[in-house]
Amino acid sequence: MTMYDITAPVAPVVPTRGRLRPLGLDEVRITGGFWGERQRVNGEATLSHIESRLESEGWLPNFDLAAAGTLPAGRRGREFSDSEVYKYLEGLAWEIGRTDAAADAELEQRFARVVARVAAAQEDDGYLNTMFGRPGQGERWSALEWGHELYCLGHLFQAAAARHRTRPSADDGLVGIARRAADLVCREFGPDGRDAICGHAEVEVGLAELGRALEEQRYIDQAALFVERHGRGALAEIEWGRQYFQDDVPVREAEALRGHAVRANYLAAAAVDVAVEGRDDQLVGALRRQWDRTLERRTYVTGGQGSHHQDESFGEDWELPPDRAYSETCAGIGSIMFSWRLLLATGDTRHADLIERTLFNVVATSPAPDGRSFYYANTLHQRTPGVPADPDGTSLRASSSLRAPWFEVSCCPPNVARMFASLDAYLATADDEGVQLHQYAPSRVRTALPDGTAIAFTVETSYPADGRILITHETDAAREWTLALRVPSWADGAMLRVSAANGVPHEQQVSPGTTEIRRPFRVGDTVELVLPVAPRATSPDPRVDAVRGCLVVERGPEVFALESVDLGGDVVDAVLSGDPLERDGRVWAPIARRGEEIAREVPLVPYHDWAERGPSTMRVWIPTS
Amino acid sequence: MTMYDITAPVAPVVPTRGRLRPLGLDEVRITGGFWGERQRVNGEATLSHIESRLESEGWLPNFDLAAAGTLPAGRRGREFSDSEVYKYLEGLAWEIGRTDAAADAELEQRFARVVARVAAAQEDDGYLNTMFGRPGQGERWSALEWGHELYCLGHLFQAAAARHRTRPSADDGLVGIARRAADLVCREFGPDGRDAICGHAEVEVGLAELGRALEEQRYIDQAALFVERHGRGALAEIEWGRQYFQDDVPVREAEALRGHAVRANYLAAAAVDVAVEGRDDQLVGALRRQWDRTLERRTYVTGGQGSHHQDESFGEDWELPPDRAYSETCAGIGSIMFSWRLLLATGDTRHADLIERTLFNVVATSPAPDGRSFYYANTLHQRTPGVPADPDGTSLRASSSLRAPWFEVSCCPPNVARMFASLDAYLATADDEGVQLHQYAPSRVRTALPDGTAIAFTVETSYPADGRILITHETDAAREWTLALRVPSWADGAMLRVSAANGVPHEQQVSPGTTEIRRPFRVGDTVELVLPVAPRATSPDPRVDAVRGCLVVERGPEVFALESVDLGGDVVDAVLSGDPLERDGRVWAPIARRGEEIAREVPLVPYHDWAERGPSTMRVWIPTS
Repeated sequence: MTMYDITAPVAPVVPTRGRLRPLGLDEVRITGGFWGERQRVNGEATLSHIESRLESEGWLPNFDLAAAGTLPAGRRGREFSDSEVYKYLEGLAWEIGRTDAAADAELEQRFARVVARVAAAQEDDGYLNTMFGRPGQGERWSALEWGHELYCLGHLFQAAAARHRTRPSADDGLVGIARRAADLVCREFGPDGRDAICGHAEVEVGLAELGRALEEQRYIDQAALFVERHGRGALAEIEWGRQYFQDDVPVREAEALRGHAVRANYLAAAAVDVAVEGRDDQLVGALRRQWDRTLERRTYVTGGQGSHHQDESFGEDWELPPDRAYSETCAGIGSIMFSWRLLLATGDTRHADLIERTLFNVVATSPAPDGRSFYYANTLHQRTPGVPADPDGTSLRASSSLRAPWFEVSCCPPNVARMFASLDAYLATADDEGVQLHQYAPSRVRTALPDGTAIAFTVETSYPADGRILITHETDAAREWTLALRVPSWADGAMLRVSAANGVPHEQQVSPGTTEIRRPFRVGDTVELVLPVAPRATSPDPRVDAVRGCLVVERGPEVFALESVDLGGDVVDAVLSGDPLERDGRVWAPIARRGEEIAREVPLVPYHDWAERGPSTMRVWIPTS
Repeated sequence: MTMYDITAPVAPVVPTRGRLRPLGLDEVRITGGFWGERQRVNGEATLSHIESRLESEGWLPNFDLAAAGTLPAGRRGREFSDSEVYKYLEGLAWEIGRTDAAADAELEQRFARVVARVAAAQEDDGYLNTMFGRPGQGERWSALEWGHELYCLGHLFQAAAARHRTRPSADDGLVGIARRAADLVCREFGPDGRDAICGHAEVEVGLAELGRALEEQRYIDQAALFVERHGRGALAEIEWGRQYFQDDVPVREAEALRGHAVRANYLAAAAVDVAVEGRDDQLVGALRRQWDRTLERRTYVTGGQGSHHQDESFGEDWELPPDRAYSETCAGIGSIMFSWRLLLATGDTRHADLIERTLFNVVATSPAPDGRSFYYANTLHQRTPGVPADPDGTSLRASSSLRAPWFEVSCCPPNVARMFASLDAYLATADDEGVQLHQYAPSRVRTALPDGTAIAFTVETSYPADGRILITHETDAAREWTLALRVPSWADGAMLRVSAANGVPHEQQVSPGTTEIRRPFRVGDTVELVLPVAPRATSPDPRVDAVRGCLVVERGPEVFALESVDLGGDVVDAVLSGDPLERDGRVWAPIARRGEEIAREVPLVPYHDWAERGPSTMRVWIPTS
């Protein structure tokens, strides 16, 4: 694979068509900053933490016991525990892909060892799941509502696609395992097979990507079949209604995402995949409308999604209680998956806006700085100080208000790990005429346009601490091309400064949306974007009942929170009584106690850092009277 | 039993001591009006509706199958289905107790038939439960967290106490069944038995009352033992924490009700019982403080309790989202049980205030006018029009936003039935010096003070439609006695008018709390209380985030709601822009659309009548801007 192979980007999502082409890990590399630090911790701590827990919880040993024929009927782990192993493999594959060869040797060994254990548990016909099909276990495919068999395979397929793209010549067998399992799924659930779907969408997005990676149209067709089967009552009615599974309304007829927020986003992401591959513009249009409505009415200011603890689901329109925000970390990642696919399909930078908001305020919130404990749910209002999680224990998913090292349902930690390890691939895209930069991080970009025009530039920035983003070109282009920069929706008054090595600098104000610079960029040419990151107080939509009479403080893409450790008392009586300001590198807000006139300035913390100084009460939306 | 037997009131709760003595069904009779109509429907429709469903759902046949030894391992009904049969029997017992003999013959036959079927399923040692102890079923007492065995028996005991008090000479065997089961519980769970509790409090309140009815101190002692065992980790840790079962903190150390709202109230009610019987003033004090705090911080304006759907539980302090109010009907009934016992123990009329609020706005809300469908949860804000329940089907407990005829968890319908059938016993109490009238309904009261002073009066009123309550005395008292009338907390400006047949009428303004009239009442003397029931707009506590910037319209004890069917459109953009008023017997509010200046008057409905005209959106708290 060359650095300029435009036919096969090393990326999680590689559609065969669309408005924008993703740039992969081989073309974009984060070199430091906010996200670089998180990638470093992910690589150095989180991945091994996850493997250690997969081992000690018995979720990896389940594969060994299955291979040995000694897996007890009441095996350890929930019905979806296999998927955490596959998500870990996917994270490891991306980590190998983005780091250099020296560091990779040890990672490669870890990868191969885990793959060998998975391989040993696969049955001759391709079936692979440690929860079903053995004596004392349920029959294969007998519990599609809750069994997660196809869901687990979807994660296997995504891991195999990652492996295939990052190390296409590797001979560890993961791609073969996935291929045999995918073939079985096509036989069992194809047009002439069971007219059924999985209770948790994921196999669709996995099949679509494996099909793209291996150029197996059959897999994409099977993904399309699963997507289309939703909304026809294939699954049993349950207490929360079939919307929990998105089996209430066909995907193309729905008005908004609904039901379980992770399931909804995974399905929507897959629906974009199959719509794009099938040239189904009507379906893309339906999904864009669902995305719009979900953003307007069912998404927290953090980008978080899911208002109900009970069924981990979206609420009704405008039902966004901060204190009961579920906002599962995995739903945030699912939302990024959905948005990213729509961005590739349409080029609409609003999708990148939501990705940024969700990355900074949901995904970055989950892990502690040491990368060894995580939020599963992400409340926007903590009324009582949390109880620290047992560092050696396993927490219940949403019971702790502090980060926990592991959960009985531990989908979030490996989801964060695979997202961070592949994050480089979400920064930039290309089309025939140039490159689009969507997320701002210290990074370098090396790619080529279809006609061979070489493009190379570096991005230097302390964003989001600072709003200045400096792009320096490192090749002489043979022709004019277009550099498109996203100007976030909050960035009123952004400034753009273009300096050609041999010309007069040009400066202009740019509006939120996209700003384009088209020139024959030469070595040393710079483009500087200055985003206004002064703190601002934002009003809610008046239809969101739960935060009426409140404001939220934001700065750049970051949402800020008031914590009791800074207030010196419970946040219950805190009132925001003036404009936020910045001083000494911190954001401050004038806060009074309810019923008192005198306000004092209290520092706020970026929401993604809350509760890092121990138990506290906290609120994001602050009453104004 | 005479009409003046003051030692054994025909009432659900008969403490051996306390500030006030309950007046039973033999002393107080509702004769019409708001509650009389509900009692009529309950007797004519609801009770037979319940029996029909207990039959068709298999919950009554479970007893037959158990007796025949043919109960399948996967029997029909949830683990607590036996309790619905016992609640039905309790309701039937009260209905027999409050109606006349002619109507009773058929009810007596129904009662005896059900008792015979229950009796046949009881085992030789007194054990009685259709879910446990047989081949293929769980072992007795092996699943105390979720098995509900003791819970079911608690309802059996309450039914037996009701039967014993309403028909002490009946020979149908229910009291004997209960006695044998209670003896078994004392043997199994006594001081030398299992150091355990049931995951759903109820056996405590049942044992205490059966002990009082049968004068068996052992049962009261066992109830006290169960109460004291709470909060010591007798039950397993669960996802929602042991507070779900009230097994997190000992009863006397808790600060507020918490966890599952029905469990919490049933346990608190039992704790008052055993505290009163054990002369444990410290425990009574703790429970009063818990009641105060729960009312201040964890109770909806309707009196409803329970902010979480997930675990049917109380939320944190000030966490009272209208749109996610669970406010289970049974929690309202449990709250009345708790409040009533505190009222008897302390004489504090604030407990009667909450009972009134909860009766009108939770209990009365549940059943439809025909008494054949019910709310399980009682939301205060409906965002989307509900889907009508299948009149022949069985609904999931909280999934429907319209009343449903039956639920898989169908605790609420029989709970409403037993409450309505015994409601006469919650209107008035007595002490050595007179009678206290707590709830206002057309009724007659006949009792005697301990020294034999006969008391008889009628109450005439259209309350709550009208605020005038006229009490006319029908005996000549041998001496002065005190008539105490509750003046509700909202009733600023209430007027009292006392007219002696042979004297000058006397009129005065009275303040919320209690007003007392002490005289030697003679035949024809009247006391008239006029409560100001003009519509009023009430502000929320500023610490309740979810209703900041809203007002609720109330009139007398009734909370009012804005329904889309009256607004002619969704309530999402409705703004309350002035004072509510009364016209043509209805309450009207000036409502504007958000962003528009012009308001128009829209009728509001009493919350207990909402959704009686079909699906609608609805809100109780209305934004003011």
